[in-house]
Amino acid sequence: MRGKIILEEHVCLPEEAEVESSKFASSNAQDLGRALLDLHQDRLQEMNANGVEFAIISQNTPGPQGLTDPNEAASYATRSNDYVSELVDQAPERFAAFAVVSMHTTEAAVVELKRAVERLGMVGVLLHDSQLYLDDKGQLREYHYDDPRYDEFWAAVEQLSVPVYLHPKSPLPDEISRLYSARPWLLGPVYSYARDTSFHALAIITSGIFDKYPGVKLVLGHLGEMLLAHLGRIDHWLEKRNRGKDLPSQKTVREYLENNVYVTTAGHFSTPALVHAMTEIGIDRILFSVDTPFENITEGSTWVDTLPISHGDVTKIGRTNALALFPRLAKRLRSDEVEKLQQDRQRVLFTKNAGFW
Amino acid sequence: MRGKIILEEHVCLPEEAEVESSKFASSNAQDLGRALLDLHQDRLQEMNANGVEFAIISQNTPGPQGLTDPNEAASYATRSNDYVSELVDQAPERFAAFAVVSMHTTEAAVVELKRAVERLGMVGVLLHDSQLYLDDKGQLREYHYDDPRYDEFWAAVEQLSVPVYLHPKSPLPDEISRLYSARPWLLGPVYSYARDTSFHALAIITSGIFDKYPGVKLVLGHLGEMLLAHLGRIDHWLEKRNRGKDLPSQKTVREYLENNVYVTTAGHFSTPALVHAMTEIGIDRILFSVDTPFENITEGSTWVDTLPISHGDVTKIGRTNALALFPRLAKRLRSDEVEKLQQDRQRVLFTKNAGFW
Amino acid sequence: MRGKIILEEHVCLPEEAEVESSKFASSNAQDLGRALLDLHQDRLQEMNANGVEFAIISQNTPGPQGLTDPNEAASYATRSNDYVSELVDQAPERFAAFAVVSMHTTEAAVVELKRAVERLGMVGVLLHDSQLYLDDKGQLREYHYDDPRYDEFWAAVEQLSVPVYLHPKSPLPDEISRLYSARPWLLGPVYSYARDTSFHALAIITSGIFDKYPGVKLVLGHLGEMLLAHLGRIDHWLEKRNRGKDLPSQKTVREYLENNVYVTTAGHFSTPALVHAMTEIGIDRILFSVDTPFENITEGSTWVDTLPISHGDVTKIGRTNALALFPRLAKRLRSDEVEKLQQDRQRVLFTKNAGFW
Amino acid sequence: MRGKIILEEHVCLPEEAEVESSKFASSNAQDLGRALLDLHQDRLQEMNANGVEFAIISQNTPGPQGLTDPNEAASYATRSNDYVSELVDQAPERFAAFAVVSMHTTEAAVVELKRAVERLGMVGVLLHDSQLYLDDKGQLREYHYDDPRYDEFWAAVEQLSVPVYLHPKSPLPDEISRLYSARPWLLGPVYSYARDTSFHALAIITSGIFDKYPGVKLVLGHLGEMLLAHLGRIDHWLEKRNRGKDLPSQKTVREYLENNVYVTTAGHFSTPALVHAMTEIGIDRILFSVDTPFENITEGSTWVDTLPISHGDVTKIGRTNALALFPRLAKRLRSDEVEKLQQDRQRVLFTKNAGFW
Repeated sequence: MRGKIILEEHVCLPEEAEVESSKFASSNAQDLGRALLDLHQDRLQEMNANGVEFAIISQNTPGPQGLTDPNEAASYATRSNDYVSELVDQAPERFAAFAVVSMHTTEAAVVELKRAVERLGMVGVLLHDSQLYLDDKGQLREYHYDDPRYDEFWAAVEQLSVPVYLHPKSPLPDEISRLYSARPWLLGPVYSYARDTSFHALAIITSGIFDKYPGVKLVLGHLGEMLLAHLGRIDHWLEKRNRGKDLPSQKTVREYLENNVYVTTAGHFSTPALVHAMTEIGIDRILFSVDTPFENITEGSTWVDTLPISHGDVTKIGRTNALALFPRLAKRLRSDEVEKLQQDRQRVLFTKNAGFW
Repeated sequence: MRGKIILEEHVCLPEEAEVESSKFASSNAQDLGRALLDLHQDRLQEMNANGVEFAIISQNTPGPQGLTDPNEAASYATRSNDYVSELVDQAPERFAAFAVVSMHTTEAAVVELKRAVERLGMVGVLLHDSQLYLDDKGQLREYHYDDPRYDEFWAAVEQLSVPVYLHPKSPLPDEISRLYSARPWLLGPVYSYARDTSFHALAIITSGIFDKYPGVKLVLGHLGEMLLAHLGRIDHWLEKRNRGKDLPSQKTVREYLENNVYVTTAGHFSTPALVHAMTEIGIDRILFSVDTPFENITEGSTWVDTLPISHGDVTKIGRTNALALFPRLAKRLRSDEVEKLQQDRQRVLFTKNAGFW
Repeated sequence: MRGKIILEEHVCLPEEAEVESSKFASSNAQDLGRALLDLHQDRLQEMNANGVEFAIISQNTPGPQGLTDPNEAASYATRSNDYVSELVDQAPERFAAFAVVSMHTTEAAVVELKRAVERLGMVGVLLHDSQLYLDDKGQLREYHYDDPRYDEFWAAVEQLSVPVYLHPKSPLPDEISRLYSARPWLLGPVYSYARDTSFHALAIITSGIFDKYPGVKLVLGHLGEMLLAHLGRIDHWLEKRNRGKDLPSQKTVREYLENNVYVTTAGHFSTPALVHAMTEIGIDRILFSVDTPFENITEGSTWVDTLPISHGDVTKIGRTNALALFPRLAKRLRSDEVEKLQQDRQRVLFTKNAGFW
Repeated sequence: MRGKIILEEHVCLPEEAEVESSKFASSNAQDLGRALLDLHQDRLQEMNANGVEFAIISQNTPGPQGLTDPNEAASYATRSNDYVSELVDQAPERFAAFAVVSMHTTEAAVVELKRAVERLGMVGVLLHDSQLYLDDKGQLREYHYDDPRYDEFWAAVEQLSVPVYLHPKSPLPDEISRLYSARPWLLGPVYSYARDTSFHALAIITSGIFDKYPGVKLVLGHLGEMLLAHLGRIDHWLEKRNRGKDLPSQKTVREYLENNVYVTTAGHFSTPALVHAMTEIGIDRILFSVDTPFENITEGSTWVDTLPISHGDVTKIGRTNALALFPRLAKRLRSDEVEKLQQDRQRVLFTKNAGFW
């Protein structure tokens, strides 16, 4: 289909490109740094070639969440948001952005979030999992955002009407040494990202935040970071063991997933997992995304365009669910005639075979 | 869930009850005639007991479509619509109705349809498959509604903004004797209904009627009368063999199914078939219905309330899709807070097991 | 995967090729006749290119079932079986065949079936829907095979341990004129094939034949000819209305479908329909097939090789279910190491994207 | 269906019952200790009432894995295996058992495993996640079983032909304090069990153990501990980032899941998750289990008996897959006529509704 929107798409600051490239000892390592810098060249061209009309970009992991010094984190956030905004402003009909913010204090987060949304026109905020910090003894620790200290942050998010994308970052060094040094291939997208983000997401979901701030929308990548596979068991046990005892949230996890949470396909182009998500939480909660430049726009687009589901559902995943979640995007976009958007899906599905007729 | 709406629900005229009862040589044959007469007693009580707020009722098969004499058919339609309207008017906050019309001429159909909608407040029209008639030689024949003679009918349907429910009736006597006399158990809901209605529906869908009158909405019962199982093959062959040659319709059958057609669960409470329908045409096209009194409200409601899909999708099937299709119903109904509607589904899903905790 | 087996693959007699080609007024009409004659050239080459190791071929529709004269039908069957056998014998490690038989009398059918299986080495019998015949008044009529007159046929089928493939043919001329002359695009694979074959299959299934001859195996093409979409409703009504009254069969239709019936993907490469079939009747009853030359081997193979299901289930559909149904094929085939068969599926699934790593 | 087999079913030693009961501050806390002791009374009665013929029982979590002293762990394992064996021997036609072993050294593990299998007749081994131990500094640490030190253990497992059930236990105290003290409701079945077991399982799967010992069978509870939701992403990244670099395993994770891993439904009676598992890894890898006494036999049995899938697949999940995995069980069981096993499923599905007929 035409007019696709994608929303877990990363860039980095110019000064980070070299490090990014060196992080991965791959044969074509140069590419990653360059790819994170590129937006208006190759990436836009690949978007054009695949019917992707719009991308919501964001600072690459870990962003401010990886900086233990509150001042550094805050100034990093400002610098990154300014830089990303400039990228967007070169083609505002094709790009928007998630802000990043320091989560050392809720005040810092709110101030920068407001600036990013109200002055820079950013459409949401992306948090790279927990906020790292040093405790009184100089030990590395992390804040999770179900902590009551973040109440004002969630209030501001609700008041500004912007979604929060909870994105992974690497585990704490202690955890890396305990669990991953003997099996480093499990780090990152293979497993640790989902492990850590699923914990954090479930902590937020069950904390009661959505009861206090029902307007808050949380977005999870990778088709829900494994949580959907466990949903029945989560609610089954919370209801029979924790309800009426220690559980702070008033509704079932399923209800929050259906009302406050969205999942994207970023980095997880899997048809059985997608169909499972459709039956668990409904098609209206699922958003197409690619996870550029770590994933390939052509691969993701081909997958979503040929999904064995209805045209209408492809259109929801590919575009209209994103417009419902980011209503202010609508005025930036071209005409929204669903029929035209679906035309090339039709074409794809019926030009496979000439046959004898 | 509460607030469910059902829409393939039948009644008969008082004078027909006895015949209906005698049609079926069952041990409790009396019940059927009585059940078709009843609406405000047992049926309403069973609706109440199962969270069914509203039913759109209709004349039982074959209605005017079974009468070969045009005048008889027309006067039957008037009489039936008047009678059904009176039933509705006794509790307009719980019932609405589909009109029946004689399809001997498009004029007769349009006049009665307008009267039914504009004067009697009916919300749609239900056609019992083809219209039987006698040809010049007195031979029994049938009209299908893709015939160009019905153009004005479809124009009126579009102009009045009312859905058309295509409902089965028994095959022609010749066909019964040729195919079913040796295996009568295949008649009716087991097989012949779907066989005949699927043919008629596909004839209408591929005729170009929806190109000429894009506002027309067609409703099929029994989860699509088998057509969804064949959808891929239908379009595959129409596109490679008939497109550009004899095919009058401009779009794929899938496109019409996603834009002009709705399917109900009437008489087909099958979870695999429903999940299949969700992936083929999308959840927004599927409407809960029971097919009373031939099916049981409790059985249908229990099924839909415990479907292994999201709350949101149960709410769509059970209620909100029907409100989108019949917008004028909305003002008759009680408050529409989705949360309250879903409450008892929550309850159903989590009171199954006390366990040890 | 490698080693795929396909089993609804048609050829025609040399004298039929010209007529076949002229039947279809397509721009490349010549192809069809030639394609039905070809087996060891282009078709084999396309099999090789797509990992199809083996094909069970059969006489194109309508075969003997279209001949109203018993003698003609019988001699046609003999001639066709001899011809098809010769085709097979040129490469018995790549091809086997279904026999055709005249169904005018069960004696004729049994004699030719035995000859075909025991002398010619054919592995099953393919019936092109009902047998046409002329009644006493010279009127065209048809036999369906649930007729008690075929008892000895089913007994022979069971005794020989060969599957019966029930394949479509065109409707009777009367039915064509009544239903299809105004909408010819519904004829054949688009709709009439499934309509007629589903009726015939359901007649056989509910007749009690499988109770009398539990070893009989029936194969249906096109993912079950729409019947799976209706299965819940069929059994629901047979059980509540017909069981204990007129229903001759002792089990539910679901039980026969799971024990006596197989469905192939011939001409219906639809993922939602296939997943539906998996949940309705289980993966062990589904067989890959293409329906050459009407369908394209490359298209079918690409579809089955990239299905969003497990490797094991692709292997079942693509090969091992066929070997379970036709055990005598096993000795003709190359080594059956599943790992090797799956290798190129692995390759297909992971060479899509180079990425940055 | 009748004849169901369940295999994640726990008991505790008599001396543990009181502690187990006090662990959970629930209103009916007494029940848990008593329920873990009971087997031949209430539990057997509930099995009988629900068509469960056979249960493979096991020591409750954490077993020897929770004991940091090697000698204590080893003697605990012996004591527990002896006790559990006695329970089994009271009704060997209804029960079998998984052994527990200390994993402090592979020698200890192998000796006790052999004794349990060869002398006590146990049919597999169940490991409660990692083995806790104290390092040189007295700090609490854990071994995972992908460590090369366990090579001889896996060799013995393969040689004895017994499955290994990887079962959860609680996280390390440090991790509890870091992640769960602020949100204790996420501990155990709600989330931490799946988090930790999924890590451990994936570590084993990607370690190359199944390449070295291809006969090893690993069983995971709770429908795969969330891993199936991530399978596409896991293989996608391992293949494009780690293959040919640091990845020790030679095949894709999907291949191991389809050849060396089984998942049970213990504690996760969720239809969408089950259907997802069917499409991801195939019906032959899925085993019914309840997780008594933490879960309810009636609830689990009702769920599996009314699953919206084929009779054949319910029979596989409910019984025949378990017999394929534990072939030596077959001789203990009653006659295995599938038809009789399915009879009461038939009955369940068709006695819901009397209707009018």
